[in-house]
This record gives sequence, structure tokens and C-alpha cells, in this order.
Amino acid sequence: MNDDTGHLVSEQALESLCTNVFEQIGVPFDAALIASKNLIEADLRGVYSHGVVRFPIYVQRILDGGTNPKAETRVIRQTRTTAVVDGDNGLGHYVGVRAMEMAIEKASDGDCAFVAVNNSNHFGAAAYYAEMAARKNMIGLSFTIGAINHMAPWGGAEAVLGNNPFAIAFPTREPSPIVLDMACSVAARGKIIVAAKEGKPIPGDWATGPDGLPTTDAVEALKGFVIPVGGPKGYALTLAVGLLSTMLSGAAFGRDVGDLYAKTTTAQNSGHLFGVLPVASFDDLDAYLDRMDAAMEDMRGAKKAKGFERIYLPGEREYLSLLDHRKNGIPIGTELFKELKALAEQYGVPFDLLS
Amino acid sequence: MNDDTGHLVSEQALESLCTNVFEQIGVPFDAALIASKNLIEADLRGVYSHGVVRFPIYVQRILDGGTNPKAETRVIRQTRTTAVVDGDNGLGHYVGVRAMEMAIEKASDGDCAFVAVNNSNHFGAAAYYAEMAARKNMIGLSFTIGAINHMAPWGGAEAVLGNNPFAIAFPTREPSPIVLDMACSVAARGKIIVAAKEGKPIPGDWATGPDGLPTTDAVEALKGFVIPVGGPKGYALTLAVGLLSTMLSGAAFGRDVGDLYAKTTTAQNSGHLFGVLPVASFDDLDAYLDRMDAAMEDMRGAKKAKGFERIYLPGEREYLSLLDHRKNGIPIGTELFKELKALAEQYGVPFDLLS
Repeated sequence: MNDDTGHLVSEQALESLCTNVFEQIGVPFDAALIASKNLIEADLRGVYSHGVVRFPIYVQRILDGGTNPKAETRVIRQTRTTAVVDGDNGLGHYVGVRAMEMAIEKASDGDCAFVAVNNSNHFGAAAYYAEMAARKNMIGLSFTIGAINHMAPWGGAEAVLGNNPFAIAFPTREPSPIVLDMACSVAARGKIIVAAKEGKPIPGDWATGPDGLPTTDAVEALKGFVIPVGGPKGYALTLAVGLLSTMLSGAAFGRDVGDLYAKTTTAQNSGHLFGVLPVASFDDLDAYLDRMDAAMEDMRGAKKAKGFERIYLPGEREYLSLLDHRKNGIPIGTELFKELKALAEQYGVPFDLLS
Repeated sequence: MNDDTGHLVSEQALESLCTNVFEQIGVPFDAALIASKNLIEADLRGVYSHGVVRFPIYVQRILDGGTNPKAETRVIRQTRTTAVVDGDNGLGHYVGVRAMEMAIEKASDGDCAFVAVNNSNHFGAAAYYAEMAARKNMIGLSFTIGAINHMAPWGGAEAVLGNNPFAIAFPTREPSPIVLDMACSVAARGKIIVAAKEGKPIPGDWATGPDGLPTTDAVEALKGFVIPVGGPKGYALTLAVGLLSTMLSGAAFGRDVGDLYAKTTTAQNSGHLFGVLPVASFDDLDAYLDRMDAAMEDMRGAKKAKGFERIYLPGEREYLSLLDHRKNGIPIGTELFKELKALAEQYGVPFDLLS
């Protein structure tokens, strides 16, 4: 995504840019700031595919009427420990934060809690929400429906499934939680696009052609479907993540899922599900944290495979990236930088805090 | 597992055998029946790796003092919506059912609920517990720690991780829920054992040798580690499933995990986590079921890949197997049949209801 690191841009510069542009196109300040911080954290963590590279499409969708800038989330059904939130077709990053905040609030006296969301949009990186819970000493779970269908069911040759992402975050004594954040394909579709542009073949387990059979031809693969991890396992997994994200709230699933990029004038009705398990309801927090310390030591202390010097915990590389990027700036490719600069000029907002 | 289908044995014959033998070695009738029904359902569903093929080791562990036949589960901490259950080192199938029953009970007035378990043992197929919830119109979640460490962390060459399984079941209008049940390896270790016996190579993504690097040599692979689905993704996933299953309850994790087969005299302190989300707390049950109908139709109705005639939903093949096996008998290989017959004779219990 960022092979060319043309510019190193500060977190503050990006946050200011995104927040200001969002405000200029009608997003209230608090929603603009929440969404901006959320998406820029993906860049900080080195998850560039979910960072400011998506900012132009979020702007475009608001301009085209596909996303509601002035969304006000509201609860449409709830119990002590569950809720369904209507996202009012708002920015997914904002809607998601509000919904996870509600799950955390419902769990504040020791209950586990789940909040399902409909009428939302692409919410960025699933880890962000799970980590919100982990910072409150709760195990956090975050599921979403993918914003484009790129997968077929096992044995199928039609894109009725998304490459649906989910995240699980565990509180630790370290500055970063352990956080799993994965979608269900072997390889990201972006890698196939790159191979196709370069005229190179792809590994045989990345994608199928339009006939549903595996191909090493990247161009054919772009007419086909990404292959799920573990074949039928990954099909079952992405289906389960998709159902968790949509069936409780009535968000779009299957054939009803629109395309983030292709249909910018209509609402996506994206769905999410957020869950929290407060650690202290199960055991004394310190006892849990002692166990987590030991678990982390078991992983990191394992004998290394040939050629490996270090074992990372899930989320650890991303945290190290965040520390680096916060200090040294976020690498932004030349083309994306031009695009962001143009947006800044168009809306008359500052974008000049380059290192 | 059952390439040789020497005998077709009725469900009733197996249930009678297992229940009677369990009772003979000290398991109370209700626990014996619950555990037997649970493990035989795996055979009915065609998941032979988790069925009566494991019965002899369960018996052996009780005889050797590794498992407590007279276990009485007890709650050691709880809130309205959470609990930690001490399995008293009982049969995992019994402990697991009791714990999932408790989660369902806690959710009976509309809350979501989670129950964490310690001091348990190998609990069989994760789907069994998730399906219990689905039959009550709740989405069911079931996580467990694997009973043997066969995986290394990504970049590692030491078995400090299990191939940890989990299941998620969704209520439907059909006789069977949609149920995901997966462990985190590309291939089951049993397949590598078969290849090694036959002197055949294995695909390059199934396992590493003892140095942690991928190998196609099945014999080397048995000295090494199974490879997780999607590489680092599967490492993160099996770690997350393991942490969910153990950290809240204080069950064994990492280096503390014993070996189901090798250490039959000591308790395993296995951990599980069960969760339930009552559908009707989020939306009217019929509205949810309508959406599930549409989702299933979207999957099944998708264009087929070349060479495929039908698209199955997760759990559907297993349900079709159950219908067949219930009617026609469960295929039991010659060697396993002899082993079961010997157990029956040893304990003077009937085992003769062959078709």
C-alpha cells in the first residue's frame, strides 16, 4: 500500500485535515474528530489499508448523499445487557465508537454486554473498538460486515459474501492489549490488484477466477473471488462473522450488501456487533493479569524457528508502528499525498505540518 | 479416520455401551448419559475424530486417576450474567453441558451471558454446546483449549500452543442451526499421521519440521508443528481462542497444558468459555428468522463453481450425516470395533446391536 514513502506526515496534520474537511461537508465537530482519530490510528498502527487512504471515499459518499454527515445514533431496542443501535447512516467510525461506548457502559456494573448496529457504514479497523474495551479491563469483541462482496460460498462462483473482519482484544499489563484483527481471506485483494498491474502471477491459494476455480492469473482473479483461509473453514468463518454483524440488527447481508466505492449515492446499511466481557466479573483483575503475563512469556520465550529472532504477539507490531509513527510521522505515498493536498486546498483547510 | 467401515453400529448400541462402562468405573448415571450422548453425537454427525474413537482414552484417564468420575461442578464466582465454573476435574463433555446450561439459564430473561470453566477435560466437539443454545433461539458460542499442544507461535519452533477449536451456532427455521466448528490448523494432525504411515509426502502448508520451517516430509512433520490457517492470522486466532478459554477462569494455558494421551494420571485443568446471545433481545424472533432464511437462500442460490452441484451451509453436511447414521448406523472401523467390544466384555455390558 505504501511502498513509496514519499512523505512523512504527522498525526496532528492528518487529524486536522480530516476533522476540518469533515466539518466543511457538514459533519459536527465531535463526530468529525472521533472518526478522524479512529481512521488515523490505523495509519499509526501501520494498517494503511484502513487509514487515510479511505478518507477520499468517505468524503465522496457524504457529498453524493450515500452517507449522512449529521447522523445521530439512537437505540431502537435494549435490555440491561443488549442493545440495537440505528446508526442513522452515519460515518461508521463514529457510529462504531458510540455503540462500543454503550456496550462498555452497560457492562460497567459487571455484566457482559453486546450491542448490534444497523444503518452504519464502513467502520475502518475492527481492532479499534475491541481495544476500547481492553483499555477498560474488558475483553472486547468487534465484528463487521465487509463493505464489498469479494467472496463466494465454498463451491460457489458468485460474490454473495464479504471478506468479513473481526477483532478480539485482551487487557494486559503492557501499554498495548493483545489484539487479533483479521479478515477471512488468505490474501488481501489489494495484493492481487498490484500483481495484475505488474503483470505477475499470484500464488494458487489467493483467488479463483470467475468460474470459482483457483487461478494464478491475477487479471482473471480480479474477475473472480478471494479464497478464504483454510478453504471451507474460512467460508464458514466469514459467513459466521457476517451473520453476527447483521442478523441481530437487520443490517444488509448477502445480495443486499452494496459496494463502498461503486454505489456512493445510496446508504450501505452496514452492520456491526460489539461485545464486552469485564474481566473482574470472572476473577480478580490481578490474577487474570498475572496469567496474561505468563501466557505472553510462554509465547515470546518459545524456541525460535530458523531465521526468526523474535516472536510477536498479535497487535504488537502494530503498537511498535504506532510508537514509531507518532514520533517520526506517518508515511504517505506520493499519489495519496497529492489527493489529500487537493482536498485540503478545495476546502481551504491547513495541511502543511510535514516533517 | 473411518476409511474401513467394517461395522455399522446403532446409536443406541454405542450409547448403551458408553453409558454402562462409564457407570462401571464410577461415573454417576446422569453424567455418564450426558457425556455418552455428547460424544456419540459427534459420530452421528460424521465428526469421527471426536466420537467414540476417544472413548477408550476417557476410560483410561478415569482408571488412571487423571479424570474424576464423580465430579460435581460448582460455581466459584458469578454475576447476573457471568459465572466461573469449577469442573471438579470431571469428564469435559459433562462439565461443558452443565456450564452451557447455566449460560442459557442466565440468559433466560433476555440477557447475554458467558460462563468460563476451569478444571475440566477434553470436551469433544465444540459445536455440541453452541447448538444447545441455538435450540433455545440464542446464538451460541463455545471455545476450548486444545488437549495437546501441537502448534508453535508464528516464528517459533516449540509447541506452546494448542490447535484450539471454537464453534458459533445460529438458530434457523430448519431442523439444524448454521454452525461453524473449526480448529485453527490448515490440516488435522491425523492426516499427517496417515501420510507418515503410508510413506507419502504432505502438502507444503500443513506442517513444519522441528526447526519451525515448512516441510513436505510427513515423518519430520510429526516431530514438528501443524501450521495455522492463514499463517500469522491462524496463530493469532488460536492464541485468542486459547486465551478466551483459559484466562478468565485460570485454566491451564501454554506450557501448563498437559497431554490428553501421554499424561493420564494427572488432571488437565482444561478451560472452556460458553456464551449466549438471545435473539429476541435484539429483534422479534420472526424478523431474525426471516433474515436467516434470506441469508441461507443467498448462499445456496449462488452460482455454482465448475464441478460443484450444491453449496452447503456450515453444519449442513454434519446434519445430513446425522440423519443417515441415525437411520442406517454409525460406521465403526474394524480396529475400533474390536477395542470397544473388548471394553464391553471387560465390563460385562451389552454391545450387540449391530445392523
